[in-house]
Amino acid sequence: MADVEVLVPRAVEEEAPGRIAAVQKDIRVLLVERDGASAGATSPRVLLRGNLSRDALRRLLSDYPSIEWLHLFSAGVENILPELGGYDGTVTNSAGLHGDPIAEWVVMMMLAHVKKLPLLLDHHRAGEWREETGEELGGKTLGIVGAGGIGGSIARRARALDMRVAGLRASGAPAEHFDAMYRPEQLHTLLGECDFVVLATPLTPETEGMIGEQELEAMRETGVLLNIARGKVVKTDTLVRALTEARIGGAYLDVTDPEPLPPEHPLWTAPNTLITAHTSAHSPRSSTRVLDFFCENLRRWCNGESLLNVVERDRGY
Amino acid sequence: MADVEVLVPRAVEEEAPGRIAAVQKDIRVLLVERDGASAGATSPRVLLRGNLSRDALRRLLSDYPSIEWLHLFSAGVENILPELGGYDGTVTNSAGLHGDPIAEWVVMMMLAHVKKLPLLLDHHRAGEWREETGEELGGKTLGIVGAGGIGGSIARRARALDMRVAGLRASGAPAEHFDAMYRPEQLHTLLGECDFVVLATPLTPETEGMIGEQELEAMRETGVLLNIARGKVVKTDTLVRALTEARIGGAYLDVTDPEPLPPEHPLWTAPNTLITAHTSAHSPRSSTRVLDFFCENLRRWCNGESLLNVVERDRGY
Repeated sequence: MADVEVLVPRAVEEEAPGRIAAVQKDIRVLLVERDGASAGATSPRVLLRGNLSRDALRRLLSDYPSIEWLHLFSAGVENILPELGGYDGTVTNSAGLHGDPIAEWVVMMMLAHVKKLPLLLDHHRAGEWREETGEELGGKTLGIVGAGGIGGSIARRARALDMRVAGLRASGAPAEHFDAMYRPEQLHTLLGECDFVVLATPLTPETEGMIGEQELEAMRETGVLLNIARGKVVKTDTLVRALTEARIGGAYLDVTDPEPLPPEHPLWTAPNTLITAHTSAHSPRSSTRVLDFFCENLRRWCNGESLLNVVERDRGY
Repeated sequence: MADVEVLVPRAVEEEAPGRIAAVQKDIRVLLVERDGASAGATSPRVLLRGNLSRDALRRLLSDYPSIEWLHLFSAGVENILPELGGYDGTVTNSAGLHGDPIAEWVVMMMLAHVKKLPLLLDHHRAGEWREETGEELGGKTLGIVGAGGIGGSIARRARALDMRVAGLRASGAPAEHFDAMYRPEQLHTLLGECDFVVLATPLTPETEGMIGEQELEAMRETGVLLNIARGKVVKTDTLVRALTEARIGGAYLDVTDPEPLPPEHPLWTAPNTLITAHTSAHSPRSSTRVLDFFCENLRRWCNGESLLNVVERDRGY
C-alpha cells in the first residue's frame, strides 16, 4: 500500500513534522510553503491547515483533489467554509482546544470589572494612594450562551471562583460545571438573571444578530456582556446605544463587527467597554495542543476509527 | 444569672444587634458610639471591635475591666496588639474570613500580568486594534508564603486555573490545594521555582523583612512578587532596586511600607509594578462574614466551648 501523504505547513511547531510522521509507519509528511507550494506531493490525502493563508489553502485543495481530510487550527469555521470551493471531503476543527486561554481572558475581565482594575491602574499611574470599593466575583451569576468546549472551560473556572453558572444550548441538556441549563427560547430569562453574560457560541444563521435590542433590554442594568465568539453574534449599533445610554453595565469584547474595528468606530469610545484584538485564544501553548489533537485524530484516521471534531458543513460548526 | 452584655459598634451591619441578641436568650446588646461611649453598659464581658477607632477601643477596655473577650475585624493584628494596654483577656481575630476577596485580587493580578492587561487597556484607550502576545496562567507555578486561611483560598483558585501551587509554612505539613509544601528554611528553593510568589503571612518578628536582597536574588528574573500580607514583610528599598534593575519580573502590592505610600516614593514609578491602597480584602460581603463568625463564636463562648481564632499574643497572630 502506498504511503499516506500528509501536507503540513512549514511554519508550524518545529517538532510538528517529526511528531506527525511518528504517528504511523506509512505516513509521509510533506512540507507546504507559505504560497501553498509543496515539493514532492503526489496524491496527498490529509492537509493540516495550520496558519496557511486562504489563498494557499484554496490552491492546495484545487491542486490536489486527492485530499480527503482537512484539519483547521481554529474553532470557529464560518469564515473558511465558503472558501473551500468544490472540496467536499472531511473537515475537522480545533474546537475545545482554545478553551483555556479564552476562559482565562473571561475570568480576568470579570475580575477587572468587579474590582475596577482600570481605575486602580489610573490611581497607580497618578501616584495616588486611593481606596476604591470593589466587589467580589464570588456569589455573582454568569450566563454562558453556548455551552460547548469553550463554554465548559469558562464554567469550570467560574465555579471555582464561587460564581453561579447558568448555560444555554440547543439541547438544554445539563452539563458538568453548570448550575442550570437553558434552551435557546429561554434566552431572555437567562439574560435577566445574570451579572455577566458571555457569548461562546459558533456564528451560524441562528446566532447571527442573536443579541439585539430586546436581548440587551432583557439584561440587568448592571449586567455585563462579554463576547469571545464572533462579532456578528451581536448587533453592534444596538450595543453601542445600550452602552451609551447605560442600559447595561459594560462590555468586554475580544471580537467585533467589523474586524479590525476601524479607529473612528463609536464602539471604541462607548462607556464601560474594553476591546481586545481577537487575541483571547492566543497562547504559546495552543500550537502544541492542536498538534497533539491532530496526531491523535490522524492515528484514528489511519486505523479506520471515527474522527473527532468533524465539522457538519450544513450546520456550520 | 445576670445577662451577658455584649458591646457592638453602632456603625456595623444594620442587622448585627438583632442577630447577636438572637444567639442566646440572656445576651444583651449594647451599642457603642464612635467615641467609645456606651450608654447603659454596666459590666460588659464581650466587645466586638468592628470599625471602632483605636482611641475608642482603648477607652472601652480601660472603662470596662469586666471585658473578657475582644473580637477583631481584621486578620492581621500586629498593629493593634500593642494598643491593648493592660487588657489581658481573650482576643480573637477574623483570620480566614477575608480570604475570598483577597484571593480574587491575587488571581486578577496574575491574569493581568500574563495577559498584559495594562497594555491592552492602553491600546483600547488609543482606539488601536493591536495584537499583544499574552500567555496562559495555566501551567505556571505559584508559591504561597504563609499557607493559612488566605493562602489556602488563593491556592484553591490557582489550582482551578491549572497552576501548580507550592506553599511554605512553619510546620511544612501538606495542605489541601497545595502540590508541595516547604519549611521556612527552604524559602530560597521555593522562590527559585516560582513564576509568581505571593506573601500571605502574618507580620511577626520572624517575617519582618523576610524578603530582602538574597530572596529577591533567589527569585527568577521573570518572577513576580505579590504582597497582600503587610508591607514590612518586604524590604522596600531593596525591592525598588530589584524592580528598577529588572532583576525580577514585576510586583503587585496591596500593602506597602509605609502606608499610605507618600506621593514622591520611588516605588510608585518602579517598572512593572502596580500598587493598590490596602483594599484587596474590601468586599461588601465581609461584614456579613465577620458577623456570622462572631455569632457562632459567641454561641460557643456562651456554651463553654473553646473559641475559634484565638490570637496567641506572644506569637503575634
